[in-house]
Order: sequence, then C-alpha cells, then structure tokens
Amino acid sequence: MADRVGFVGLGIMGRGMAANLVRAGTALTVYNRTAERTAPLVELGAVAARTPRAVAQNSDVVIICVSDTADVEQVLFGTDGVADGLAPGGLVIDTSTVSPTATRHWAERLAEGGVAFVDAPLTGGSEGAEQGTLSIMVGGADADVERALPYLQQVGSTITHVGPVGHGQVTKLANQILVVSNMLGVAEALMFARASGLDLAKVITAVEGGAGGSWMLSKRAPQVIDDDWRPGFRVDLQQKDLRLVLEAAGELRVPMLATSLISQLYQPLLRDGRDGDGNHALAETVARLAGQR
Amino acid sequence: MADRVGFVGLGIMGRGMAANLVRAGTALTVYNRTAERTAPLVELGAVAARTPRAVAQNSDVVIICVSDTADVEQVLFGTDGVADGLAPGGLVIDTSTVSPTATRHWAERLAEGGVAFVDAPLTGGSEGAEQGTLSIMVGGADADVERALPYLQQVGSTITHVGPVGHGQVTKLANQILVVSNMLGVAEALMFARASGLDLAKVITAVEGGAGGSWMLSKRAPQVIDDDWRPGFRVDLQQKDLRLVLEAAGELRVPMLATSLISQLYQPLLRDGRDGDGNHALAETVARLAGQR
Repeated sequence: MADRVGFVGLGIMGRGMAANLVRAGTALTVYNRTAERTAPLVELGAVAARTPRAVAQNSDVVIICVSDTADVEQVLFGTDGVADGLAPGGLVIDTSTVSPTATRHWAERLAEGGVAFVDAPLTGGSEGAEQGTLSIMVGGADADVERALPYLQQVGSTITHVGPVGHGQVTKLANQILVVSNMLGVAEALMFARASGLDLAKVITAVEGGAGGSWMLSKRAPQVIDDDWRPGFRVDLQQKDLRLVLEAAGELRVPMLATSLISQLYQPLLRDGRDGDGNHALAETVARLAGQR
Repeated sequence: MADRVGFVGLGIMGRGMAANLVRAGTALTVYNRTAERTAPLVELGAVAARTPRAVAQNSDVVIICVSDTADVEQVLFGTDGVADGLAPGGLVIDTSTVSPTATRHWAERLAEGGVAFVDAPLTGGSEGAEQGTLSIMVGGADADVERALPYLQQVGSTITHVGPVGHGQVTKLANQILVVSNMLGVAEALMFARASGLDLAKVITAVEGGAGGSWMLSKRAPQVIDDDWRPGFRVDLQQKDLRLVLEAAGELRVPMLATSLISQLYQPLLRDGRDGDGNHALAETVARLAGQR
C-alpha cells in the first residue's frame, strides 16, 4: 500500500510543493498555522487537519516546510506535535532550512519512538516550488532517503543525497555562503565600475563568460543595474540563513570572515524595512558606502 | 598596405600571443627585456629588435604585454622607449593589466605626438594565449579600436569594446574583484563543510547548478579538494591585480570591503613562498584559520 503523506507548512514554498504532491496522486493531509491557507489544497483534493499531531495520525510520512529551527521544533515536539501522532515506522522529511545540530538531535529523539528522519532543504524559489523543479540536498540513512525519494521527486528535479542526517542542512548552508559571497563580489565590482563611469551592462557582458562568472552575476547583476529589487530570495530569509551559518560555524569554532561581514552588510536593509527585497539588494548597501545611494 | 606590427613583452602570455600573430601572417617585430626569449619567435618568422624604440621605428602598431604599471611606463616613455620610435599615425595596444589612471595619462601624452592608444587587458591564462582564445576587454576611441580589432582577433576569441581609454582596465579589475570574491566564497563554503565532516565532492555536485554556482566553484573547488595548487592564475599576479584594484578604488575614495580583506588573506601565501601557486590557494589560508592546515 502506498504511504499516506502529511504536509505541515503551506507558506510560499510549501503550498507549491503540496499542490504538486496532490496532483501527482498522493493522498495528502495538510496543516497550516493560518488555517485558511489549507483551502486551495483541499480544493485540489487534500484533507485538512487541525493540528500537526492530527496530520501525523493520518500519515505514514510527514513532510515539514516551515521557516526556522524553533518552528520545526514546535511542529515536531510542541503541544499536538507530529511526534505525538506518528506511529513507529513513520518517516519525517524536513525541507526547512534549519540548524544542522538541532536536526541531528531531532533525528535521535524521533528514532527513540521508531520514527525515521531525513533532512531535505531546498533551493529554487517559489517558481521552483510551483513548477516542481527544486534542487534538494538530502541527509539521512540510505533506506530512509530511498523511501523519501518518490515524494522528493514530485517536488524537485535535482535531488542529491549528500550524507547522513544533518548533511543536507550543512550543504544548504554552504550553498548560502556561496550565494552571498558571489553577490558581494558582484556588488563590489559593479560599485567600482560605476564609480569609474563605466557602462555596467557592457562590463557584465565582457566578464560573465570567464573566471569571474557566476549565477548571481548573470541573473542578479542585470536586476541591480535596473534597480529591480523583486526577490528571488528575500533579504529577511537570507539573513536568517546567514544566522544559521554563523551559529553552526560558531559551534565548530571556525571563523567565517566573508559570511560574518556580509551578514553585517544586510543589516541596513532590514533597518530600512527592505525585508521583502531580493538578496541582491546587498548591492544597495555597498553602493551606499560608495556614496552612490 | 597592411600594418607592420611590433610586440613588446614575451612572457608567459606575450609569447603565445606573438606566436599566433606571426602564424596569422602578421609582419612582426619583437622585443623582450631578456633577449633570448625572442629566439622561438624569430624561428617562426618574426624579426627581433634591440629596444622598444627600435620595435616602434619598424612598426605602425605596437602591442605591449608586460606585468605592471611601471613596466608599461618604462616601455613607452623610458630610454629607447616606444614613444621615441613610433611615427604620428601609430597605434599602441596595451594588453597588460595596469592602472586605469596611468592608462588615461599615457593616452593623452601619446596623443600629443599623434599616436593613438587602446587598452586591451585580457583573461584566459597561458592556455588561452597559446590557443588564441583569450577574452579581451577593450577601451579606446571607436576608430582606434576598429584598427586594433584584426590583431586582437588573432590572439583572442571574445573581444568586448567596453568604452573609452581606461575602461578596458576598469573592466579587467572588476573581473578580478569577482574572481577573488567568488574564490573566497568557495574557500569558506568548503572549509565550513569540511569542518562539518561532509564529502566535499558531493557538496559541489549538489550546489554548482544553482544560485551558488560560479566558474571558480566548478573549475577550482575540485582542485582544492585534490590539493592541486597548479596555477590557472598565479598568486603573485593575483595579488598585484588586487593592489591595482585597491589603488584605483583609493583614488575614487570608495571602500572595497571584500577585495581589501581578500588581499590580506593572500599575504600568508606570499610569506610562505607560494607565489607560483594558483589563486585558488586562497582556500589554504581560510583552511588554516579553521585549523584544517
């Protein structure tokens, strides 16, 4: 018999993923803190539950997609949490981006009740969630990842099993280090070229094919030139992920020179209420330092 | 009548470029400070001259490929320099990576003698120079760039006219900001993942196709994992280019947070005599901070 699947967290990412699961024929029970958000899923054929516990009671596999470490903790182990409802033999798939250390603790705690755990943070934005083209970095035991795979394939197109529980989160955080470092380089290069009076579009064309090339340069530098701050990934979520990087690195006692600097450079944007701008708005802080804003 | 062309500077980049010019049928007069380096070019059919002035006296167009601002200054305006030998109507193409401000001054000074100037710094390494696949960022007046184009096309495959004199240099320096920022991101992400016990090859595979992707991640991160420090671009030349960035930015009074930090992180490599390692050895400084070296 196919697994009954539960889904907790119907935010900007979760709602697209849940819809793709239902459309693929998965029997889905859903929960969201703001209950109205379940309506579009129920219309598609999902069943709404009143608590994460109720989701779990009706499911063999529970997928979680919430914002931060404390939210996953609450969903799993809070009042009426998933851990109280999921029978032994169940599986939790956490697609949120959260602390690797907390992730390992949750997996251990769930294992005591006979429940398996896979961390599967994702990238690809809300478009990726809607279109089912997310990239997913998976940590977990082989058998658990194999069991999770059919559901991950219904929401993502690039799925990489990187190691045991927690390694998915570390990989996601490493990805965030790359994203913001590349963005700082883009911001500093554009600011330098602008201060020198150059045509920035020509600069991008001249260098993007070579050793200075990056996804952020090709996709976000043109947005910067156009003052287009619509988000691929929001500033407030970027800053939250950098906090997770710095927390995890702090536990390991390794200094993060680039990431800590960049985290500071995001602060003025949050102070100015630009939480919902794209993470490429980092270029605005850098431009401000150059007197260009 | 076709231009007679001169070439000054037969180092690791210049010798490949000069050879491609000769092979393309260009009548070439060459000069190098270490005279023996002219021999392979003479064998191909070039004529060796004893001074930059002698090169210029025998040429309509003089291409320069040396290391630093002071070297170009010496070649142009030193004793027996190009400026003393080139007749009015001549053109200088400087492919070195040097100060944008000095570049503009040289162009003005040469213009007084009726000589035109184009700055055309390049990327693509010694392989690119040998194979004629360099990327070239060109600054100069339209007519001068048009005149330079046939020769640039004999040594490079991607040629972008970015603006007036000096703008080629600014674009090259912007490229260097991108290169080292992306490399710092790669170094910090790998160090973080290594400290967390991950399989670094799997991390690269999981993230290189997404928003964290870059040329440095795809080409250099695998070298870092293999402790392969063979140079695509040498540490000492990278540090020289960062000095040019910081000098130019200093003149503009714009702060370069990433580039200044990264320039400091290259210092331990130079102290340890790793001048000839590739610029991806930045990962070694970052790993050292994490106690991984």
